[in-house]
Amino acid sequence: MTKIRANLAVSLDGFAAGPNQSAEHPFGDGVGETLHRCMERWMFEDAENNKEEIDGHVSATAFIMGRNMFGPIRGEWDAEWNGWWGPNPPYHAPVYVLTHHARESVEMEGGTTFHFVTDGIESALEQARAAAGDGDVLVAGGVTTVNQYLAAGLIDELRLHVVPVVLGAGERIFDGVGELTLEPISTRATKFVTHLTYQPKR
Amino acid sequence: MTKIRANLAVSLDGFAAGPNQSAEHPFGDGVGETLHRCMERWMFEDAENNKEEIDGHVSATAFIMGRNMFGPIRGEWDAEWNGWWGPNPPYHAPVYVLTHHARESVEMEGGTTFHFVTDGIESALEQARAAAGDGDVLVAGGVTTVNQYLAAGLIDELRLHVVPVVLGAGERIFDGVGELTLEPISTRATKFVTHLTYQPKR
Repeated sequence: MTKIRANLAVSLDGFAAGPNQSAEHPFGDGVGETLHRCMERWMFEDAENNKEEIDGHVSATAFIMGRNMFGPIRGEWDAEWNGWWGPNPPYHAPVYVLTHHARESVEMEGGTTFHFVTDGIESALEQARAAAGDGDVLVAGGVTTVNQYLAAGLIDELRLHVVPVVLGAGERIFDGVGELTLEPISTRATKFVTHLTYQPKR
Repeated sequence: MTKIRANLAVSLDGFAAGPNQSAEHPFGDGVGETLHRCMERWMFEDAENNKEEIDGHVSATAFIMGRNMFGPIRGEWDAEWNGWWGPNPPYHAPVYVLTHHARESVEMEGGTTFHFVTDGIESALEQARAAAGDGDVLVAGGVTTVNQYLAAGLIDELRLHVVPVVLGAGERIFDGVGELTLEPISTRATKFVTHLTYQPKR
């Protein structure tokens, strides 16, 4: 059965992105860069010990992402902007991008197609679920988008990659989500990061 | 060698106490009560599986606590107020209480003596360290006090008991601590709570 999953790298104080995201600093100021560097370390320098979690990022058969994850926050994307990932993005599946601006779908190399959804998170989820077949839907980020889906009670499994730093600023997981009880599914420490997997309760 | 340790139960969004602490609600509004109930569950209903962590709360040979942990926040303690714990508190060792108001030390049953320290966190630590002998000093709480010691770089080992709830309000671990890098020491999931142990780096 299709699960709706979300994975997010967060600092020990819950920050998943820095403030002031821009084209020059897509992860935001210092904070976001620090998180991104940590993420590269556990995904590349310690890949073997994190295989399950890395697979969890790429094994979904449909993806959803917020507009800030697809492109710079400020200013509209020009017609040439097809995400940060070059001609062959790492999704290899349909990706539903939440935005307020309608745009034609864009087919990339390697099986990734970006679809632009202007009528909200539930519509995006419906479309992603239909496209996913028996596979999972991954809400790929950013943190604001994950929080919206958590607040709406639409996430079946949340995995946090906890990076052992305290950052003190940025965009925080669970902000505005309200009260929520989760069931711990698994906990695993690796060299650079601790993986905590939870199932939000309805 | 004496280690300076801190243990704290926190929600998944980092809250360690509710807002509006009072004599009637020593852990604060709903949030704090929820955390306290969870803590009772893992300490009493699942004690065997949490032996190491429970021992970690009581094995220190000297303790430090903030004034809000010792007594209600508002109004001065009257001369009869000797903490929340009755005649035989669970510390069985000297406890240094941070306060702005000088008071004679109070010897309780079972080896607990409350000392009142008016000249700041470093003085309290010096006194606790001298009293601890070869044992550890535990900064018992509350969260504001733990944050002060973290900000000052005085904690050798921080253990978080992560309760799988999102609370959305209260007093947060790491608030005001600034940027900090920690080394993960251990991670352990039990039925009601996930224990994360870190060593703050200098």
